[in-house]
Amino acid sequence: MSPRELVVLGTAGQVPTRHRNHNGYFLRWDREGLLFDPGEGTQRQMLLAGVSAHDLTRLCVTHFHGDHSLGLAGVIQRINLDRVPHQVTAHYPASGQRFYDRLRQSTAYRTTVRIAEHPVDLATAPGTRQPERGDLAPSATENLDTPVPGSTVPPEAEGARSGSGPGLAWSAAGDGFVLSAARLSHPVDAVGYRLDEPDGVRMLPERLAAVGIRGPDVGRLQREGTLRGVDLTEVSERRPGQSFAFVMDTRMCEGVYALAERCDMLVIESTFLDEDAGLADEHGHLTAGQAGRVAASCGVRHLVLTHFSQRYPDAEQFGRQARAAGFTGELTVARDLERVELPPRR
Amino acid sequence: MSPRELVVLGTAGQVPTRHRNHNGYFLRWDREGLLFDPGEGTQRQMLLAGVSAHDLTRLCVTHFHGDHSLGLAGVIQRINLDRVPHQVTAHYPASGQRFYDRLRQSTAYRTTVRIAEHPVDLATAPGTRQPERGDLAPSATENLDTPVPGSTVPPEAEGARSGSGPGLAWSAAGDGFVLSAARLSHPVDAVGYRLDEPDGVRMLPERLAAVGIRGPDVGRLQREGTLRGVDLTEVSERRPGQSFAFVMDTRMCEGVYALAERCDMLVIESTFLDEDAGLADEHGHLTAGQAGRVAASCGVRHLVLTHFSQRYPDAEQFGRQARAAGFTGELTVARDLERVELPPRR
Repeated sequence: MSPRELVVLGTAGQVPTRHRNHNGYFLRWDREGLLFDPGEGTQRQMLLAGVSAHDLTRLCVTHFHGDHSLGLAGVIQRINLDRVPHQVTAHYPASGQRFYDRLRQSTAYRTTVRIAEHPVDLATAPGTRQPERGDLAPSATENLDTPVPGSTVPPEAEGARSGSGPGLAWSAAGDGFVLSAARLSHPVDAVGYRLDEPDGVRMLPERLAAVGIRGPDVGRLQREGTLRGVDLTEVSERRPGQSFAFVMDTRMCEGVYALAERCDMLVIESTFLDEDAGLADEHGHLTAGQAGRVAASCGVRHLVLTHFSQRYPDAEQFGRQARAAGFTGELTVARDLERVELPPRR
Repeated sequence: MSPRELVVLGTAGQVPTRHRNHNGYFLRWDREGLLFDPGEGTQRQMLLAGVSAHDLTRLCVTHFHGDHSLGLAGVIQRINLDRVPHQVTAHYPASGQRFYDRLRQSTAYRTTVRIAEHPVDLATAPGTRQPERGDLAPSATENLDTPVPGSTVPPEAEGARSGSGPGLAWSAAGDGFVLSAARLSHPVDAVGYRLDEPDGVRMLPERLAAVGIRGPDVGRLQREGTLRGVDLTEVSERRPGQSFAFVMDTRMCEGVYALAERCDMLVIESTFLDEDAGLADEHGHLTAGQAGRVAASCGVRHLVLTHFSQRYPDAEQFGRQARAAGFTGELTVARDLERVELPPRR
């Protein structure tokens, strides 16, 4: 099993179909397992995909529409029933606390496991304007000056996006990554998520050999920075961290770019085809072409399209439109129960 | 399509399996469609079974454990999304109102359709003792003197069961049936449901011919009771109404018998096999043998076993144990998406 992989649990927008369950995505990232947007039936899709409640460390909800969150109730009850021994943390837009509370206590069960609640509070993040109405999400253009510790988004790339700031206004420390969030634009408060692995160090064997450092001394040099007059930087290079972004229901907005920027894998909704761009904007969604353009302009390496409207019988059209929009990297038009490995580090 | 049939949507107890979704049962009864105990994923199972939100007229929940009710959230949202034009009525134990409220508003959606709430209030039914704790269900032995209009339970059959009354302590008028409920015995408040079609009249063609009544006169005789000196009873016989009972999570108790008595079809949980009778009692469940004994002693015509624990790989064992307990009628060991017709009238 790959230590970093996406397991697709469901791919339908709004309503399930014969071949597509409601949304649901599991990201295995070393010792962590993140469940994104569990729609109704995710508990069973996990079973079908071989993902257990014990694999979960975080539950990440982008917004509280049913197709992205109704499955939370069953998943939390299953974590409880299976007596998962480690802590599981739930992330969701802070303004949806009442929905989270109802889902957590929607039916009778004996609570034995505590789910840690760590909501995404964009309203109080520095540099973020308070939304005017609790249920309406303004676009994230005002998050100009809140860089996130550990974010690997290079400032020059940000500058290329009409001079805006990084737009990632909230973060949490994971095991081997920083989890960030940005506001999206949908009829209810919605956020996208991004994981960034901090940059590391890659040792260069031929240079180590040239200076005669080997065996346990390599570890000493890594820990101490210098050894016998040799500096770590002389025998190593920067190893770029991996990154993953999850962008669900939204119109085009700054947050989409902030999340997608130079990420290794982007899972993004493309509810509509380009010919229905008007409908997409009206309902706060993206088209396949828009998703492809974002991925192309942000230098995404592997694009995963999902959340397809049931109105289109042929999902391959989504891939064709993303290609036509200029995306040339790896492309997956997601199917239920599919597994997608993260690309190797750059 | 049969006008009266059971559509099995899910058959798993507690947790879903690869081949069994959480509970869910749709009963088509002429112009009504009753959805019993929608567990998580019922919305998609309905799609797979060809049952639409427009087919629903009633939602009947026996108790608020997740495997019997989490699907209510999605089903109600789907009724709303599909703009079902007729009224849908929800029945559930009145003590679970808070759970119903949370499920109905568990995520954000624009409510356009009103679900009528008609909870089963056994606590205030005449002859019913108030439960000592809201979440604990005493057995129904105290419902001694509350016969239900339209109930076909003969008093002498009741008498055979240690002299208790019919035990059906709540009722509602349906289109072509009376819906009744009885208290069951489970760790949380639980009720079972029963439908009874009122007895009708079956005309006897040879007697009609003998007295020379034909054509539109037959209708007149039916409406008026007598015609040209002929009494309706001389040329007709009683047509027994059909009945259906739904008995989920419960230990053996009076309510089980009251619900099952002489019904044409009994859908009943048999979570455990007989060898685990101790576990069954401890957790408030039935074994297959107990279900078979109830069906045999109550004169049930078609027994449908369901709600199987995942611990048993071979569901056919449940059927064998029900037979061994003495049940000789029609028997179905339910599988997901199976359709079962009600037996023809007696």
